[in-house]
Amino acid sequence: MILSRTIADVKQILAAERRSGKRIGVVPTMGALHEGHLSLVRVIRPQCDHVVLWLFLNPTQFNSKADYDKYPRTLERDAALAKEAGVDLVFAPSVEEIYPDGLEAYYEKRSVRTYAGACSWGLCGAKRPGHFDGVVHIVAVLFNILQPDVAVFGEKDYQQLRVIEQLVRDMHYHIEIIAAPLIRAESGIALSSRNELLQKDSTAPLALSRALLSARDAAEQGETDAASIRELAAGIIRTAGLSIDYVEVTDIHTLAPVAEIRNEAQLLVAAYCGEVRLIDNIRLRTSGYNPSALKTNG
Amino acid sequence: MILSRTIADVKQILAAERRSGKRIGVVPTMGALHEGHLSLVRVIRPQCDHVVLWLFLNPTQFNSKADYDKYPRTLERDAALAKEAGVDLVFAPSVEEIYPDGLEAYYEKRSVRTYAGACSWGLCGAKRPGHFDGVVHIVAVLFNILQPDVAVFGEKDYQQLRVIEQLVRDMHYHIEIIAAPLIRAESGIALSSRNELLQKDSTAPLALSRALLSARDAAEQGETDAASIRELAAGIIRTAGLSIDYVEVTDIHTLAPVAEIRNEAQLLVAAYCGEVRLIDNIRLRTSGYNPSALKTNG
Repeated sequence: MILSRTIADVKQILAAERRSGKRIGVVPTMGALHEGHLSLVRVIRPQCDHVVLWLFLNPTQFNSKADYDKYPRTLERDAALAKEAGVDLVFAPSVEEIYPDGLEAYYEKRSVRTYAGACSWGLCGAKRPGHFDGVVHIVAVLFNILQPDVAVFGEKDYQQLRVIEQLVRDMHYHIEIIAAPLIRAESGIALSSRNELLQKDSTAPLALSRALLSARDAAEQGETDAASIRELAAGIIRTAGLSIDYVEVTDIHTLAPVAEIRNEAQLLVAAYCGEVRLIDNIRLRTSGYNPSALKTNG
Repeated sequence: MILSRTIADVKQILAAERRSGKRIGVVPTMGALHEGHLSLVRVIRPQCDHVVLWLFLNPTQFNSKADYDKYPRTLERDAALAKEAGVDLVFAPSVEEIYPDGLEAYYEKRSVRTYAGACSWGLCGAKRPGHFDGVVHIVAVLFNILQPDVAVFGEKDYQQLRVIEQLVRDMHYHIEIIAAPLIRAESGIALSSRNELLQKDSTAPLALSRALLSARDAAEQGETDAASIRELAAGIIRTAGLSIDYVEVTDIHTLAPVAEIRNEAQLLVAAYCGEVRLIDNIRLRTSGYNPSALKTNG
């Protein structure tokens, strides 16, 4: 496995791979790798010939400097895990390499920027101003540098997945986006780099997945009223002592809030456990709805 | 020569060219081809194996619907001229093909968009709000669809050239940008599709190039004060009965206004001849300055 730090390097390596007909896949990460990231590698590995793991803690998608500063940084361990998982190339550029005119040029809009669309307006987008603009910008840059054939994003960051799908559609990138399922620990908690910031013995964070699973069961048992589903989930989260950022039931594609669950919907939650912000989401299906038995409507 | 109207088509054709190792060059135009565009083809032809002429009258870079509506449309003639000039592929997509969610989604910022940087702030950017955002967006889309190795832009649209260079740098496109010299008719007028909208017998538009050439001579003869140069040019334009939009002396790279010409500067003008807006520009050099005799400073 190669570890590359510069754009010039990675361009040269990938140009050679491309010339020899290799299909290039990319796993975008901010580092602090865990089993969830490694599952992304396993999902994309059979879909391509050369797997690039992009490892870049992008400052412009953090809407608080404190959050950026405390985000875990574990490059050596990440490189070892990537190698073990079968990654061919880890690309870990510096901030200066990606933002050559400096971050101020980005924030002051002196540099060319790409902005997220309507999929970014609600949920985390409403709570974290500029976050998805930073995500869309860095992913466009990543696409332009690596020119992958395929990229994988986890459903753990469900809104991000939809925001990226919109980027690809609206900006006409020729890149296949694969959605990889969210991975839960045995305890039920969704795997996240931010889990490392939680107190080891606290059970409070487990309320998030418990709330989602209860809501899913309620929908399966016939509850179709989104407000009731939201109240059920919020009650469980609040009782555990977490501070709710949002609990929302939305259309699975547009992320627009829905009042009633028809066939399926997505339940998305964000809550603070002390200083640590956690997100989670789950698919809700009404009683008897089986999407795999239906033809898609296109 | 192939004329293609759909993205799916052009993707397939160019993927095959790329696989066989061809270097792809693109000439972006809005159609209504004239000798200036054909000179772009001649400049890029020896630099690549497959020349694509992009022919798309992009609505989002017009800041007035009247201007968009009256812009000349001459597809059949354009295709014939392109063939004669040695173009391999004319790509002329519909508005629906490029903006699948409709223009309203673009204007209401519901779609993902790319925005121009600081190079777009003055000159035409200040006079035509949204113009360069539309240009940068469509050129990013063009780059994503065609994935060219090289693209050529004319120095006739000098600010646009700098805006595109910034797009490539900030968004990390692997695309070489070639600047092609402005082409003048025998009368001195800069070739432009908008010239077709001028009254045939009017000599007033010639004042623009006359003003620029006089200013260039004055600089060569020792005038280094930007205000004096601007007054000289503005006087000639005004006397001819044109209505000035701007006359500016700027840094040749950043397009920031300069008060004094040191070695070289760019003089840029925009003026209305009746309803028709014309632009032109010229390099100013101080007496004795010879850039080709110097090493560049990087």
